[in-house]
Amino acid sequence: MNFAGASILSVDQFERADIEKIFAVADKMEPYAKRQLVTRVLEGAILGNMFFEPSTRTRVSFGCAFNLLGGEVRETTGFKSSAIAKGESLYDTARVLSGYSDVICMRHPESGSVGEFAAASRVPVVNGGDGANEHPSQALLDLYTIQKEVGRSLDGLRIAMIGDLKFGRTVHSLIRLLKLYRNIHVVLVSPAELSMPESYIEEMRLAGHSVEVSNELTDGIGSVDIVYSTRIQEERFESQEEADLYRGRFRLNQQIYTKYCQPNTVIMHPLPRDSRSGANELDNDLNQNPNLAIFRQADNGVLVRMALFALILDVADQVDKSAREVNWYHRRT
Amino acid sequence: MNFAGASILSVDQFERADIEKIFAVADKMEPYAKRQLVTRVLEGAILGNMFFEPSTRTRVSFGCAFNLLGGEVRETTGFKSSAIAKGESLYDTARVLSGYSDVICMRHPESGSVGEFAAASRVPVVNGGDGANEHPSQALLDLYTIQKEVGRSLDGLRIAMIGDLKFGRTVHSLIRLLKLYRNIHVVLVSPAELSMPESYIEEMRLAGHSVEVSNELTDGIGSVDIVYSTRIQEERFESQEEADLYRGRFRLNQQIYTKYCQPNTVIMHPLPRDSRSGANELDNDLNQNPNLAIFRQADNGVLVRMALFALILDVADQVDKSAREVNWYHRRT
Amino acid sequence: MNFAGASILSVDQFERADIEKIFAVADKMEPYAKRQLVTRVLEGAILGNMFFEPSTRTRVSFGCAFNLLGGEVRETTGFKSSAIAKGESLYDTARVLSGYSDVICMRHPESGSVGEFAAASRVPVVNGGDGANEHPSQALLDLYTIQKEVGRSLDGLRIAMIGDLKFGRTVHSLIRLLKLYRNIHVVLVSPAELSMPESYIEEMRLAGHSVEVSNELTDGIGSVDIVYSTRIQEERFESQEEADLYRGRFRLNQQIYTKYCQPNTVIMHPLPRDSRSGANELDNDLNQNPNLAIFRQADNGVLVRMALFALILDVADQVDKSAREVNWYHRRT
Repeated sequence: MNFAGASILSVDQFERADIEKIFAVADKMEPYAKRQLVTRVLEGAILGNMFFEPSTRTRVSFGCAFNLLGGEVRETTGFKSSAIAKGESLYDTARVLSGYSDVICMRHPESGSVGEFAAASRVPVVNGGDGANEHPSQALLDLYTIQKEVGRSLDGLRIAMIGDLKFGRTVHSLIRLLKLYRNIHVVLVSPAELSMPESYIEEMRLAGHSVEVSNELTDGIGSVDIVYSTRIQEERFESQEEADLYRGRFRLNQQIYTKYCQPNTVIMHPLPRDSRSGANELDNDLNQNPNLAIFRQADNGVLVRMALFALILDVADQVDKSAREVNWYHRRT
Repeated sequence: MNFAGASILSVDQFERADIEKIFAVADKMEPYAKRQLVTRVLEGAILGNMFFEPSTRTRVSFGCAFNLLGGEVRETTGFKSSAIAKGESLYDTARVLSGYSDVICMRHPESGSVGEFAAASRVPVVNGGDGANEHPSQALLDLYTIQKEVGRSLDGLRIAMIGDLKFGRTVHSLIRLLKLYRNIHVVLVSPAELSMPESYIEEMRLAGHSVEVSNELTDGIGSVDIVYSTRIQEERFESQEEADLYRGRFRLNQQIYTKYCQPNTVIMHPLPRDSRSGANELDNDLNQNPNLAIFRQADNGVLVRMALFALILDVADQVDKSAREVNWYHRRT
Repeated sequence: MNFAGASILSVDQFERADIEKIFAVADKMEPYAKRQLVTRVLEGAILGNMFFEPSTRTRVSFGCAFNLLGGEVRETTGFKSSAIAKGESLYDTARVLSGYSDVICMRHPESGSVGEFAAASRVPVVNGGDGANEHPSQALLDLYTIQKEVGRSLDGLRIAMIGDLKFGRTVHSLIRLLKLYRNIHVVLVSPAELSMPESYIEEMRLAGHSVEVSNELTDGIGSVDIVYSTRIQEERFESQEEADLYRGRFRLNQQIYTKYCQPNTVIMHPLPRDSRSGANELDNDLNQNPNLAIFRQADNGVLVRMALFALILDVADQVDKSAREVNWYHRRT
């Protein structure tokens, strides 16, 4: 695809070469995100960071990515007070807001809304999450993290996806991106009530990948490169009995990891993870495990979003030319 | 008036020459707002964008205007959490907040509050809307749009104002600005219950202009340069019967436009327009009409607000000296 | 202490020499805060201004301080919508958010939370107030104001603290900083129910200072350099009878000042002051009194916060090298 001026709305718009291009630019962004270098290549540009549904980390991640390229950020958060609530159409909102900035990042609670907005916008739009539909930068940062963590081509990757595979937007997008590679082996581990929709599984198999389905955590995690865990919300179950049945069965902790996983298996999670005692996800006792990649994953979000902005605004080749040293304290612990 | 260091609180503070000065500077801002050029003339300056009542588009428009001149923006939105809610006087709030920035834009739900705030502020204040009272930058951008759209002097302008003329802050401010020109012909079209207060009509007639009053849409729109439509909120009527009586009678659509308007009549609206099916304003079927100026009107808001900041902070003459080319993608669709 | 890369969590981490260093840097920041000079020494750096509890003035003061050094600010306000509300631990929040910025300022309603956050953060953290616990930049700006107002060494200072001395976080922190000086005389004036906890008084006396306790305003204010007034919230009293007993007895106005205070006694308040008629603090008739230092105090907050950022990010010595003239209107009334 031609990135200059393009909107990023869905993972379906990418071919493998597009993803490789994004990742190559993301690699180049690392010294800037780590504050070893400063660039001001987008000085004077404005990001409209329009969050009609709250999401602190995604919003701040996009905003920082734009700042790190030298641009300014104007934001909105929340819905109630917006013109949309007064009956304004997404068409009108898009025509107006796109007069204010050079690119817009938008999150909106309704599925399909960001695409509708983008169709009327006069500037490129990045989908920051539209309901149950898409969150393409999350899928890209997940895939980018997998590639960095395993340290080789994604072809032949073995990955277990754990938890709520029915409603989890991130695993749906990720599996669609993986489809573009070769010889992927996916293990899907979830309660029966929350299993991956058949259509995703069929797509993978038709593309020549292998998919294994299980509802036992310990079955699925023994022979994979990546364990990708997601949150299970108890209210997804039809009854408390059903929820009780599964309580704790998809929780990964250090003991289970040591007993069942291969020594280099990488642990990922889209975050936030619920660290309250009743939650069924990643135990805090994994925090010292060097293969827990969840915070590197969040860091990679900045790199991938910088790459998207650099490509959309067509400055990827200019970043290094404008680089200068950082003159303030920036050692990171 | 001397703009340097002045607060912009009301349209009443302008003479015709002041408006012409603002518009001349706004014209010069166009290449910056269109991202053909970048200026950093206000680099290091801070706008305090203080919205004690929400208004996404006005807030973002002011913020972007300041960013486009190179300055930074610090914002607040909402009221409940502010010190004002803890019993702080506007005097105290103004003394404190004016220590933080170079200029303040303020919106506040109470009529007169921004003037009271400005009296205690140590830096210039721009009224971003204070209750039913004033919203001078809206009136200026409306008038600027009229001038650009008709492409000639405003003297002799013929304009129809449609909808809620009783409570509509924007039409009140606009009619006061028009008073400064010569030989204006105003057609006021509204339900009887929502007609323009007599004082505004008297002022216009005393200044030598002609004012026609009607409650039939099709009477009013046939012989004007501009149709300025506004929202009618049904709850303004005393009874549902009254509201039903007027339902749809002030709604402009393409069919009515074709039948009754002259071919170059320009359609304006302060936005947001209510696009829900029950609303009585501008039909979406006008979106392809080249004379629908509502989005150009919103774009002009950035130009007028840039001009106000440039004049208040006395940098209008320095903008072009600091101009440089834009190096990122900026073609607009 | 070594400021470079350090978090600022509590007044207890400072020795007298540290405070003198902060104040020396704050003095150097004055031409920048007054817009006589511009510096861009932190251009490219990002402050994460994370307010999980609202506080307009503290948030904007920190943000402006960072902007005035040339840096960018990414913000969050409110709590409900944050990941913390979904069960995310402060550890996780800190690991993620500290990947986005160069320094974080954090306010949080829970006592001790900011320290817990800082322990997991990969970048320095400034405590912007954590519940009833600490608000060190407020204590520093109070002390800085005292020093500037009295115009000599703080040794030998005489100060009256008035109002709610039991729950007032600011007076607790201030008294702890004063302990580092010599020969301080403190007069504590409050209702018996709201008196300063004994531990603070003991600490002062053990350090060789003198402390006098009173519940009569006019007893305490006659022989001091500084009157530091704070808000009394009526709901702190056990009964309305108790509250009524004290109503108005700790309110300072011009008449009382003239009758009881020495002519150069400086009046301070952490703000906001409640200016509603029933409030018991500083009367508006003091606004013309040149010794009312409350707004200079707020202005000093910007200087002290600039100094903290400059020291933490180790650019204090570079600020003047990068200075340039201001080219916009900046006379302050």
